[in-house]
Amino acid sequence: MRVLGIDCGTERTGYGIIDSDGRSHTIVIAGTIRTSPRNPLSARLAMIAAGLREVISQHRPEEAAVEEVFHAVNAKSALKLAHVRGVALLVIAETGMSCGEYSPLSIKQSVVGYGRAEKQQVEFMVRSLLGPEAPTGQADACDALAVAICHATRKGRAVA
Amino acid sequence: MRVLGIDCGTERTGYGIIDSDGRSHTIVIAGTIRTSPRNPLSARLAMIAAGLREVISQHRPEEAAVEEVFHAVNAKSALKLAHVRGVALLVIAETGMSCGEYSPLSIKQSVVGYGRAEKQQVEFMVRSLLGPEAPTGQADACDALAVAICHATRKGRAVA
Repeated sequence: MRVLGIDCGTERTGYGIIDSDGRSHTIVIAGTIRTSPRNPLSARLAMIAAGLREVISQHRPEEAAVEEVFHAVNAKSALKLAHVRGVALLVIAETGMSCGEYSPLSIKQSVVGYGRAEKQQVEFMVRSLLGPEAPTGQADACDALAVAICHATRKGRAVA
Repeated sequence: MRVLGIDCGTERTGYGIIDSDGRSHTIVIAGTIRTSPRNPLSARLAMIAAGLREVISQHRPEEAAVEEVFHAVNAKSALKLAHVRGVALLVIAETGMSCGEYSPLSIKQSVVGYGRAEKQQVEFMVRSLLGPEAPTGQADACDALAVAICHATRKGRAVA
């Protein structure tokens, strides 16, 4: 199963694609779509959509997964993030992929085995699960890979 | 100037196109894109995007306008609305239109002359500005027309 994970953000949207049988995972590609705050939100959304469409058409994932949006932290950033998430869900729907949605807690639980893990622990585990080809110093790409791993693990468990 | 106004919503997204010289306005088309809560959000976003693209390609507006999102009322509905708004802004950006964004207060101020006007007053004024062709009993289409009128009036004043 080839899974695309997306970590939405207005400034940096991370993406990561893995091949997985539900237990072991291989990285296909991971990266970050960056947009400048000097551009209006609509132009930034168009850049994010174009970037995601390109990654999808090049690497043909079969399923997709995104993080659930949570409104606890900061209402204004959550609203901005929801705009990007809307665009990501649209791009996914338009390519006909099914899309899993996971809470930050479930993602950490899947990858680290502990729902309240720190960001660095997630990055460490993503790297130990995917090997040296996992990106270093790219927090957003790494978070996207974590979402993909979470989805692949859940799906693998459902099939088994 | 031909202006498209959009009133975003997950269940009902209103749209309205007017021709305007900044003072007098004629209605071109107005309607509502409805989506069912039984469909996942991603499918609903795809329906909204398809609906908006169709209206744009049929009626070729030159500019667009949407309401600003406000997070005061209900955090959960504001987040859902922001997903739809992200999709609307994307569709607008991809067609190359510039897009005005207005607060509910400015829209009411433009249409009724009073920022704290009731919904019925807005509908009444939209109908008296646009004539009998304005839709009746379609609150979302009417709100979309109000956004378009607000944009056309502001632009008209800027040019004069």
